[in-house]
Amino acid sequence: MTTAYTRPLDIKRGRVDMSHGAGGKASAQLIEELFLPELDNPFLRQGDDGARLPIPADLGGGQLVMATDAHVVSPLWFPGGDLGCLAVHGTINDVAMLGARVLYLSAAFILEEGYPLADLQRLVRSLGHAAREAGVPVVTGDTKVVERGKGDGVFIATTGVGVVPFGLHISGRNARVGDVVLLSGTVGDHGVAVMSQRESLSFETQIVSDTAALHTLVQALLDAAPGAVHTLRDPTRGGLATTLNEIARQSGVGIRLQEAAIPVKPQVEAACELLGLDPLYVANEGKLVAIVAAEAADAALAALRAHPLGCDAARIGVVTEDRHRFVQMDTRFGGRRVVDWLSGEQLPRIC
Amino acid sequence: MTTAYTRPLDIKRGRVDMSHGAGGKASAQLIEELFLPELDNPFLRQGDDGARLPIPADLGGGQLVMATDAHVVSPLWFPGGDLGCLAVHGTINDVAMLGARVLYLSAAFILEEGYPLADLQRLVRSLGHAAREAGVPVVTGDTKVVERGKGDGVFIATTGVGVVPFGLHISGRNARVGDVVLLSGTVGDHGVAVMSQRESLSFETQIVSDTAALHTLVQALLDAAPGAVHTLRDPTRGGLATTLNEIARQSGVGIRLQEAAIPVKPQVEAACELLGLDPLYVANEGKLVAIVAAEAADAALAALRAHPLGCDAARIGVVTEDRHRFVQMDTRFGGRRVVDWLSGEQLPRIC
Repeated sequence: MTTAYTRPLDIKRGRVDMSHGAGGKASAQLIEELFLPELDNPFLRQGDDGARLPIPADLGGGQLVMATDAHVVSPLWFPGGDLGCLAVHGTINDVAMLGARVLYLSAAFILEEGYPLADLQRLVRSLGHAAREAGVPVVTGDTKVVERGKGDGVFIATTGVGVVPFGLHISGRNARVGDVVLLSGTVGDHGVAVMSQRESLSFETQIVSDTAALHTLVQALLDAAPGAVHTLRDPTRGGLATTLNEIARQSGVGIRLQEAAIPVKPQVEAACELLGLDPLYVANEGKLVAIVAAEAADAALAALRAHPLGCDAARIGVVTEDRHRFVQMDTRFGGRRVVDWLSGEQLPRIC
Repeated sequence: MTTAYTRPLDIKRGRVDMSHGAGGKASAQLIEELFLPELDNPFLRQGDDGARLPIPADLGGGQLVMATDAHVVSPLWFPGGDLGCLAVHGTINDVAMLGARVLYLSAAFILEEGYPLADLQRLVRSLGHAAREAGVPVVTGDTKVVERGKGDGVFIATTGVGVVPFGLHISGRNARVGDVVLLSGTVGDHGVAVMSQRESLSFETQIVSDTAALHTLVQALLDAAPGAVHTLRDPTRGGLATTLNEIARQSGVGIRLQEAAIPVKPQVEAACELLGLDPLYVANEGKLVAIVAAEAADAALAALRAHPLGCDAARIGVVTEDRHRFVQMDTRFGGRRVVDWLSGEQLPRIC
């Protein structure tokens, strides 16, 4: 993968800034230019939100999936969810997006000295509830404490493992020219819900986060379109725009979207206008993009819509041949524009 | 498991304090009274530093091991190591202590805004080097950034997975009366090495951390004493004393130690005296405790000593019948004393 960043990372004199955690261009550059050269291996190079990993034959064989997330959302409670359930949903989704049956979660907590135990209990309760609801137990954990002023209440790093059924291979690298791009519902809900709680930006809104575990939705999709689902990804940090750019880059294709087909709740649209945000770049925590063979697109869309978490699903575009790997969009007004990666930081600490 | 704490956790009015992260009695109480009731499941109840997990038969079967650690050591560099290699070693060791072949690692980074990229690169390089040296790749990761003053440079949460060879069952629950307690080397090196770097406690010392991946040492031990290794654990936070108390509690036994047999480097002994610490409670990052059947103890000890990471290994005690599950020690001076759990916080942010 070669992406031409404006200039290479200045490792000698540079410093970490908020954009390195925003999931857009700066995050990708940090990973490619600082992390990958030091950690390089074929699994990490897969470039998906989790890794597909062979179990050695003498230990039983099979294909493991592993995904990890550090969750630093602020504030810790937001309409529709909190850090606890988000930590479960986000990691289950990363494992599920590789087609794996999600089996187990681990959770590592970094607590700030002085944090109220009652609030910690509420977060752990929410995490436990989300895990039970999803049927994926938290099987091991760790708890560390840092001094007051060296953390921010609670951070949770979760890791998920699953096993891929034999013969299934879903990856961001598998999008093919002519494939159809499906989206499971409205975009921007999570990001706007979190932003609505930030003190510096408080505004009234009815929007709640879409945070949800998508593994049963994935299963419904795979059952309805066997062999036809090429790529799955949840558009979290960086939003739909960044996710589609990642896929275009990984698969070496272009993507052409229909703006009018992308579902956005009117309240989200309004809030984004107020905040100067583009909903295509706002994080989701309960939506997926599915890239499927054209002949299976109708069946796949019907399966998504038949599931409670996919009732607003839509066909939003197609995969095209494009050596520039651009994501382009036919606008509502009949024009066309390039939908680039998120550059810089739109929404800090959204997940 | 029932431990009589002095008083129950005051969840309503209590707050997180540094002792909750120190690995001793307060940590155990937080886990038992706040975390376990919310997350309860049989895997978490195993009570080891990792979990043994069945892979469903229709997905190939077998026995997975998963362990996770949040690493918040301060300072980030210390004699003999740094946060990067520590994050690899600590998690490999937790997986290895269940007898698993360690296969893969994930790493989630929480970076503080303003942290120098050059220092981050040094840490990631050390992490990558440690992973390559151990032969366990970091296959997936995540990077988040928090605002200046909401973190402390870099935190790393690592998770490891491995697979247990068929028929092997090693657990903190398996210590049997009459078993022999082996220790792979000197205690207290890591904790004293880190303390030597704290600005408020700076003193000159030659001590370097023992941080190391112990999976090959475990393998050597298992090969030398097949079927005879009942329990393995690395005495990290809380030190040897806390680890042995955990095992005694899990297995429902007592442990009787010989103080004179426990190897401690003279410089560590001297530094501990200066700081008012007991080396039995100081963290190690490259040592293991093995509880083995008496008839295999000589072979097991010889195997430990033949390995570069076990050259100072010693037989330090035996497992006894004791309904109070006490760890007791015959002192150098002919007396006997109870070696209790670490209570409160001896060394903050040691790993």
